[in-house]
Amino acid sequence: MPVLKLTVAYDGTRLVGWQRQAEGDSVQRVLEDALARFEGRPVTVHGAGRTDAGVHALGQVASVEVSFTHDASTLVRALNAQLPEDVRVLAIEEAAAGFHARFSARAKSYRYCIRNGPLASPFERAFAWHVPQPLDVGAMQQAAARLLGRHDFSSFRSIGTDVPDAVRTLQASAMVETSGAGPWLGDAGPLLTYEVTGDGFLRHMVRAIVGTLVEVGRGWRDPAQMNALLEAKDRARAGATAPPHGLFLVRVDYD
Amino acid sequence: MPVLKLTVAYDGTRLVGWQRQAEGDSVQRVLEDALARFEGRPVTVHGAGRTDAGVHALGQVASVEVSFTHDASTLVRALNAQLPEDVRVLAIEEAAAGFHARFSARAKSYRYCIRNGPLASPFERAFAWHVPQPLDVGAMQQAAARLLGRHDFSSFRSIGTDVPDAVRTLQASAMVETSGAGPWLGDAGPLLTYEVTGDGFLRHMVRAIVGTLVEVGRGWRDPAQMNALLEAKDRARAGATAPPHGLFLVRVDYD
Repeated sequence: MPVLKLTVAYDGTRLVGWQRQAEGDSVQRVLEDALARFEGRPVTVHGAGRTDAGVHALGQVASVEVSFTHDASTLVRALNAQLPEDVRVLAIEEAAAGFHARFSARAKSYRYCIRNGPLASPFERAFAWHVPQPLDVGAMQQAAARLLGRHDFSSFRSIGTDVPDAVRTLQASAMVETSGAGPWLGDAGPLLTYEVTGDGFLRHMVRAIVGTLVEVGRGWRDPAQMNALLEAKDRARAGATAPPHGLFLVRVDYD
Repeated sequence: MPVLKLTVAYDGTRLVGWQRQAEGDSVQRVLEDALARFEGRPVTVHGAGRTDAGVHALGQVASVEVSFTHDASTLVRALNAQLPEDVRVLAIEEAAAGFHARFSARAKSYRYCIRNGPLASPFERAFAWHVPQPLDVGAMQQAAARLLGRHDFSSFRSIGTDVPDAVRTLQASAMVETSGAGPWLGDAGPLLTYEVTGDGFLRHMVRAIVGTLVEVGRGWRDPAQMNALLEAKDRARAGATAPPHGLFLVRVDYD
């Protein structure tokens, strides 16, 4: 059967996350339900990254085996007409046999948005973590760079998960300062974005990194401490987990 | 009693508009309720513009007479702690005696956001009108410029209102094309913003202008027709009223 590769954006605010749950709209559920109507039988959609409740995606990738054939742009329109407004299919293409959104992925890129100003803008309360205290961005940039390369990220994973191998390689790990201005964002202070690309991510890994970087920015930790944190392989040594609503799955790369 | 001038931003999505209604959160109601707790008695807050349900503000101005005296920055923090997250007080200053947010206003500026691309971004469905059809931006710019200056805007007001004088002066009326990109907006096609400043606005006036400009952009109307529309003083001759969620009250100017 043909394998379709779907590129999907969603506002995670109202959603229970990527993965199908007993209750509530998950991205997987709304995509499977919409596709099943074309297929005439239940289908299983695989996502590249299992984002949590409240986490957003600009370019999640999903794969599904279907027997129907439709023109891709027609199918994009037809699916979007059935999906809730907070989930949009951006593109559909036919993938090679054996393509699997998760297992074929070579790299994933995430972005985490932090608004660092005195006031929380009402227009971005679902899309950026508001940190009103002054942050030392230079120190955060130094700390972020120390995570580049191949490391055991056990100190930055959620407690209780049991994936045996916690070694991951980060090709990008940078804290970027932008004006963050926009047509409806006004002038709410600088927007910091943490931009990270890696061959894989542990559960809550990006949010644990961001929580730790903010503690560096507040002067509670020294950037040089990041190497010792990695070596400790102890979640209790790193910082608090940043809230989900600042996190975006930006892109998934394949060979 | 001292008169306070408040600058307020809000995401109008959930709100029933500026004006207090029997049911639901209006901006006036939540501000009056929060201020009454400091004042120890009911207070009346006057807004510069009575925005409708779904309409947003980056810089609405409100005035209120109070007997208490508090340091302005302390009061901003204390009010925001009590207000719902979709309403934020940006600044408070003491105004001259007799200051009234609405009657003292010299000019108001509004912005209307139109996303002109094939797909509706899930991140801006509450902040921009999505028009998927191709738009002739040059024609819209010409049509917008024809509204500059002093005119009777009866053709662009909501039917059934009875303000006797429909003559208003526009100091700015321009259609601007931007990339509209942002940390969580991705690349969703150009964003058009209609930027308008005037000494006053009739009910639904900006939305009726924008609805007409989009009909120009789609080729249904000629830009030169705008002058005849103004002269007709007939709401039925102009275009459909654009939806509220693309509209922002940007700024109010005083002497």
